Parts: sequence; C-alpha cells; structure tokens
Amino acid sequence: MTMLEIERKFLVKSGEYKKEAYEKIRIKQGFLSTDPERTVRLRITNETAFLTIKGKSKENGLSRFEWEKEIDKNEAEELFKLCKPGIIDKTRYLVKIGDFTYEVDEFYGENQGLVVAEIELNNEKDSFQKPIWLGEEITGDIKYYNSQLSEHPYKNW
Amino acid sequence: MTMLEIERKFLVKSGEYKKEAYEKIRIKQGFLSTDPERTVRLRITNETAFLTIKGKSKENGLSRFEWEKEIDKNEAEELFKLCKPGIIDKTRYLVKIGDFTYEVDEFYGENQGLVVAEIELNNEKDSFQKPIWLGEEITGDIKYYNSQLSEHPYKNW
Repeated sequence: MTMLEIERKFLVKSGEYKKEAYEKIRIKQGFLSTDPERTVRLRITNETAFLTIKGKSKENGLSRFEWEKEIDKNEAEELFKLCKPGIIDKTRYLVKIGDFTYEVDEFYGENQGLVVAEIELNNEKDSFQKPIWLGEEITGDIKYYNSQLSEHPYKNW
Repeated sequence: MTMLEIERKFLVKSGEYKKEAYEKIRIKQGFLSTDPERTVRLRITNETAFLTIKGKSKENGLSRFEWEKEIDKNEAEELFKLCKPGIIDKTRYLVKIGDFTYEVDEFYGENQGLVVAEIELNNEKDSFQKPIWLGEEITGDIKYYNSQLSEHPYKNW
C-alpha cells in the first residue's frame, strides 16, 4: 500500500499517557537504509512483520510518502540480520484522545529516556486536542526520525 | 521468499548469444540502497515488479543471501521515484546450455558496451558447459554488481 503520511510529532513530558493507553505493543525495528530520502525499515512485533519504505518529508515536514507491506515473520527475522547496526527497541502506547489516536513511543537501549508522541492526521488542517503530557512539537526534525535514532542515538546527543 | 543464491558471472566476448536465446526481457532497475551488505533493488519489466534485498556475498563470492517479493506494478512505479540516481536499463537474454540457463545482460545508457552472463547453480560444485561466447570470469567482483554499476557506471571506468 502506498500513501502520503501526514503526521505531527511531539516530545512527551510526563508518564500519564501510560494509564490512558488502551493498548501497548513492543516493537523492534531495523534499517536497511537510513537515507532520509529512501528509508527502508523492517518492523517486527509479537504478531507481525512489516517492510516499510519512506521518502523525504515535504518542506513543511508534515507529509511523507510511505509504502508498506506485511511480510512473513520468519523471513523478517532473516532480513533483520542484514540491517545496519543500531536496532530500535521501543514500546508503543496507543492513546485515543478525541477523534485521533496518539502513538506514544517509549524507547529503550541507546535511546532510553526518549519518549515521543505522534498523531496521524487526515489532512494538514485537521485540528486535534493536546493532552497535558504533550511537550514541545518536533514535527519534521530529522534527528527524531527512528532511522536517525538508529545511527545517532539519544544517549549521545 | 528467502534463498541463498549461488551464481557465477562472466564477461561476454561476442554477440552469438542473441541467436541462441529463447527469450528476451527488457529490465529497468533502481536502488533504494546500494550498500553491498544490504542492497535494496526495485526491478520492473513489462509484466512484473519485484522488490529484492540482497546481503553481502560470502568470502568465495559465490553465494549471497537474497529475499524477493513481487509487488504491485503501480506501487513499484511510485517507489521508483525514491530510488537513487543511476537507473539500470538492460535487456536480459535467456540462453539454455545443457542443464542450466545463462542470463545474459546487455546494458544500455551509462553502462552501454557492457555485456555480462550469469549462471545460477544448485550448489557450488555443479559443473556446467561454457559456450564459446563466454569470456573472463568475474564472479564476486563487486564492481559488476548492478548496484555498483548504478553508482559507478561502465562508461566511467
């Protein structure tokens, strides 16, 4: 499936999102390409595996071309061995606020201490509620791309 | 599908393979990653589109991990726009000799003048016939990888 992904991204300043979450998912990600113009990501959860290709974001940083395909989990484990060093390990909490769902990622390992929330919009003008735990907006800041966190982790900033 | 690809590769020193070919296919290839340890290739022919991920070849240069998946052709055209500069354009001739099929690639564009033949073996010890048009063996020579020809084309050698 191809789509144009419209997203806004924020830092998270407190842990209250955890008790508001209706689901949490452990996610392991590796990258075959971390080039922001053609990122190739492998994502494995307990249940599923996906291969995702993303383009560069547009000037405003809001929208980004994305192609995603579910792949066989055993094949994904084999492909993981080819990924660049710097596996991303995180728990994703899903928090529904108004009409939208925030995906809150709590990172581990080299990115321990970083918590980031993303909200996917239907179009760039959509308005949405901001929960009190939401911090500074970081939409379009490349250093928070998971592909970049893989190469330049938070603990080295 | 994942597999270990066992291949031998040769230069081609004359054009006789063309009249021995039982099929020819025009192939367009782009790369999302040209890193030899994790090449990500998009291949489009008249009929089909495939996404292929390849690992580094083993020390002897003969075998290489490969994962391949057919994808929707329209999606492939979209993904082509994300590929690195240096599209590979070639005609592949299929020539059956004994029990094996040689794939002979005649390159165009920046790689015009280069003709390369590959034979895929079932195991590294397989013996196979060499047609008279077969030239020097170049198995494992990275500069003949299509990913490398994309970045460092034949005309600049």
